[in-house]
Amino acid sequence: MARRSGRRPGNPDTREAILAAAREAFAERGFDGASIRSIATGAGVDPALVHHYFGTKDQLFLATIDAPFDPREMLPQVFAEGPDRVGERLIRLFLGVWDSPFGTAGVALLRSAVSNEWTARLMREFLVTQILRRAMSQLELPPDEAPLRTSLVASQLLGLAMARYVLRLEPLASAPAETVVATVGPTVQRYLTGALPDTAHHSSKIGD
Amino acid sequence: MARRSGRRPGNPDTREAILAAAREAFAERGFDGASIRSIATGAGVDPALVHHYFGTKDQLFLATIDAPFDPREMLPQVFAEGPDRVGERLIRLFLGVWDSPFGTAGVALLRSAVSNEWTARLMREFLVTQILRRAMSQLELPPDEAPLRTSLVASQLLGLAMARYVLRLEPLASAPAETVVATVGPTVQRYLTGALPDTAHHSSKIGD
Repeated sequence: MARRSGRRPGNPDTREAILAAAREAFAERGFDGASIRSIATGAGVDPALVHHYFGTKDQLFLATIDAPFDPREMLPQVFAEGPDRVGERLIRLFLGVWDSPFGTAGVALLRSAVSNEWTARLMREFLVTQILRRAMSQLELPPDEAPLRTSLVASQLLGLAMARYVLRLEPLASAPAETVVATVGPTVQRYLTGALPDTAHHSSKIGD
Repeated sequence: MARRSGRRPGNPDTREAILAAAREAFAERGFDGASIRSIATGAGVDPALVHHYFGTKDQLFLATIDAPFDPREMLPQVFAEGPDRVGERLIRLFLGVWDSPFGTAGVALLRSAVSNEWTARLMREFLVTQILRRAMSQLELPPDEAPLRTSLVASQLLGLAMARYVLRLEPLASAPAETVVATVGPTVQRYLTGALPDTAHHSSKIGD
């Protein structure tokens, strides 16, 4: 799914030093606050080497959390067709990733995010900057509602991963994908495009 | 919330031996499969001592997972008024527990369940036997639909706990309780009492 080159270039120690510096920077200052330049300084290398090894800041970030897929490749197919039935398409994509061999990496990532405050911050940054922000812009949600709407979607996706893949709660764990799409899809749809209560407009401004 | 006596009676080593045997029994054989007799044998004590220290099997189970509340005391107020708006009442109760000092214990329990296969099994048993099964019987859900409905509810509750309390995803983490009740309550309501797709009836039979 994510593009991977056949071989990983360069010195493995340098790669690891860059990854360690990047994890620290992203967890401490967030995705937006961390710069390639500061990460390079933290790793004791030239910024050009960071780009050479990892490409863009997006790609470096996905490498730090060992992301099982690249949202930039997956999300357009969900949002390209517009808001109609987007909830079902998002759940179908989500199950496609988690039911595949990548699901094992997803469970490992979720376990790590829950037990470790640093990984939790990275996971939050991943959700916000790589998934939710893209979803907001592609769906053209109203800016004062988008943060609450997308964090509600995240709550259902996180819980689906927890119930189906981590705790393996039956019958949800063994239910056919299309049953999950038909039952959970409308929840995501309502969070994205349904009416919000009046109180929600106020609370969504907290994130401004 | 859960009734606790002012002092814990008896030998602390004996208490711990019983708790260790109980955790092993509940994780390996499930709540229904584990007997007080077998737990007493595992701890090398008389079954009467298990009852003396911990009361019923339900109470012993809650002690093994260090449950922050006793569902037998909390759930009746949610379900007593029948299915109308039960989703909102369940979310209001859920937030009342998690926003209280008990929430810290809840986060610890969730962290442990995610990182440890044994605790995950105990958490699953807790959800199924202490929460979902009670909800099913009190709401009188159709038996062939109840397992899927309640595991869907569990997915949203787990995800709400993850997003609001573990990852602290904004603006959901700081949203007023009534905003969460008004947005997530209808999801729980639909999972409990809304129409299920045809495919769901087949899949829900997996748990029979």
